[in-house]
Amino acid sequence: MKLRCASCGQTYALSDLAWRCTHCHGMLDLTGFTPVMPPPGDLALRRPSLWRYAEALPIAEPLGITLGEGFSPLVSAPGRPGVQLKVDYLMPTGSFKDRGAVLLVALAASLGVTRLMTDSSGNAGTAVAAYAARAGISCGVYVPESTSAGKVAQLRAYGAEVFQIPGSREDTAEAAARAADVPGVFYASHVYHPFFLQGTKTYVLELWEQSGGRLPETLVLPVGNGTLVLGAYLGCVELLSQGLIDRLPRIVAVQAARCAPLATAFADGLPAPAGLTLPGLTVPGLTVPGLTPSGLTPSGVTPSGVTSSGLTSSGNTASGTVAEGIAIARPARGAQILSAVRETGGSIVTVTDDQIHSAHTELARAGLYVEPTSAVCWAAISSFGLEDAVAPLCGSGLKSKPPA
Amino acid sequence: MKLRCASCGQTYALSDLAWRCTHCHGMLDLTGFTPVMPPPGDLALRRPSLWRYAEALPIAEPLGITLGEGFSPLVSAPGRPGVQLKVDYLMPTGSFKDRGAVLLVALAASLGVTRLMTDSSGNAGTAVAAYAARAGISCGVYVPESTSAGKVAQLRAYGAEVFQIPGSREDTAEAAARAADVPGVFYASHVYHPFFLQGTKTYVLELWEQSGGRLPETLVLPVGNGTLVLGAYLGCVELLSQGLIDRLPRIVAVQAARCAPLATAFADGLPAPAGLTLPGLTVPGLTVPGLTPSGLTPSGVTPSGVTSSGLTSSGNTASGTVAEGIAIARPARGAQILSAVRETGGSIVTVTDDQIHSAHTELARAGLYVEPTSAVCWAAISSFGLEDAVAPLCGSGLKSKPPA
Repeated sequence: MKLRCASCGQTYALSDLAWRCTHCHGMLDLTGFTPVMPPPGDLALRRPSLWRYAEALPIAEPLGITLGEGFSPLVSAPGRPGVQLKVDYLMPTGSFKDRGAVLLVALAASLGVTRLMTDSSGNAGTAVAAYAARAGISCGVYVPESTSAGKVAQLRAYGAEVFQIPGSREDTAEAAARAADVPGVFYASHVYHPFFLQGTKTYVLELWEQSGGRLPETLVLPVGNGTLVLGAYLGCVELLSQGLIDRLPRIVAVQAARCAPLATAFADGLPAPAGLTLPGLTVPGLTVPGLTPSGLTPSGVTPSGVTSSGLTSSGNTASGTVAEGIAIARPARGAQILSAVRETGGSIVTVTDDQIHSAHTELARAGLYVEPTSAVCWAAISSFGLEDAVAPLCGSGLKSKPPA
Repeated sequence: MKLRCASCGQTYALSDLAWRCTHCHGMLDLTGFTPVMPPPGDLALRRPSLWRYAEALPIAEPLGITLGEGFSPLVSAPGRPGVQLKVDYLMPTGSFKDRGAVLLVALAASLGVTRLMTDSSGNAGTAVAAYAARAGISCGVYVPESTSAGKVAQLRAYGAEVFQIPGSREDTAEAAARAADVPGVFYASHVYHPFFLQGTKTYVLELWEQSGGRLPETLVLPVGNGTLVLGAYLGCVELLSQGLIDRLPRIVAVQAARCAPLATAFADGLPAPAGLTLPGLTVPGLTVPGLTPSGLTPSGVTPSGVTSSGLTSSGNTASGTVAEGIAIARPARGAQILSAVRETGGSIVTVTDDQIHSAHTELARAGLYVEPTSAVCWAAISSFGLEDAVAPLCGSGLKSKPPA
């Protein structure tokens, strides 16, 4: 098992602690690992955590580190019989990011790393900090200065060193990248490290199992840096390659209109979001062992009723959407996200902050208290009248800033 | 299935909506219901929620109301190989109270109730409000004026009408009691309604199943109103009556030294906490169908190393402990709690706020971010060196007030 640059093909040992290609700055994917879904009979006897899919994961369950994350409930959506919601904020740190964080920290522990760092608008950082604390690995987290007091308090409670960076989310990412280039540092990045996607792919493996060995026609997913979209896509491709589904479900990815670089690029037919300057971003798709994207049968599902209308002209700057968790102006894996969504016959759509507010209220009034970011999918489902669809509730409403 | 006064024996139909005995104000227990644990082979095939114990519950799974609550992970405790922690804040509203709340709201829905009310220092109220919202039942919640802005925001998000009552937690309870006496009102009380304990008992049923058909020697539990202690006791008694365990584990219940009426009464050998004026509080124990407390074999376990030292002389007033969730000066089921703990050969102990603070920090530094109240058990485990013990992490740290 190695890391391989999706751009130039250069490979790295996991122990090299590379976070992007040192030659061309391309994205690193995982290679030399063949995931297999456990047989249903075996699954039934395993504990309800993401580690039940052991044969599909690149690292063994870290017994002293796991907090029982994963296998979140799938519940009916209010007033929409054809839609289900996966309560994915039922995670130890309150967001779906625990799926990826536990794999990253398990890897760090297995490599004997004693210090790691990450960057995050909040949820990924708290997830990594929590598992690092449990693993006894010291942790530094770079966050935007605007991150809520509650999230910073949670990070500090875990014993993490918090670096609050003035400016945009991208300024934080750049500060983190500088720190990550110091030799010997493990950059536990939810954006760059492919182990994170190995964790988030379990969202789809669970959904498949919980739905009785099928997937819905449509996966509605929030998209910022694409950790869930790319993980979900990866999970779908693995199920397809094993003959466990007969086509990819379409992925309808949702952005906030105020920060929608992916939706803009999708609508414009571009291979990558505008404004990206890092090399390696023209890569057509994920590197899935034994299965190139061109070998896949497109699902052929037309995203009926789904359009990319509502895009703002300022989609390339994070201009203060309430959906702070996906306000990513320059998603580093943007080309992979666009390629993955297109391959599924899906779409990247936007919702306005007004629609997000309404969806947030509607969910809470139905007993589902989530972060505003987590309401974007419900906004899209309501706006476009999606059916036979599943969306995640990604972050707990308890993470919201309380009213002043 | 009926409600029966534990004091005078008067019975009530569930549809009477009685919340305490209208004759003598005694506590109501459940009667005429024989719970059965499902066979292990059946259990293995069921979804991981508390509803997997269908035959042990007095109401069927409410499909439109459940949020997949229950079956929380059991994880190793940091640095104490003989101790495990049950991550019971992994619930839809962020606390173990969802266990009881979903049963109460399921009952309300089955009775055709259109309006319910409850009172709470916070967590029980948010739990009831969430499920009421999901069930489409309007909800009023009485909370102390001191309740954190975050909890009030969560209640309001669910669409609940929030009544903030000046004064102590008891003033809130009295305001709620007056509202509850209005005919036709369903008082969804976590303290009074025995259905709540039918929900919290699943904590022990899960623990038994997750531990491979056994229980630890010691259950360490926080105690304020006793919703978890009495539920756990009930679960243990049910397992014992079915021959699934051979003795009751001892219950070590933990109070904050600054508000410790139960620990004081326990140490003084009293049948009920001092200062309680409600009738019905001299009742010796729970009414378990087919099994009177006198028919049980006491476990005979001496609570070695466990004392009730550290009691304050002001144990009868809520004098500002950080463990706000258990700062209950006059627990209405106090006599039942004392009886239950004694019957298990257990103890009621106290921990100081300093110990709670230290325990809270220690847990967070190990990746477990909980409410301060949830740290009391860890404080007791650390102080008394308990082994072969399991304690719950009851409330998410995300519910804590952020720093000013």
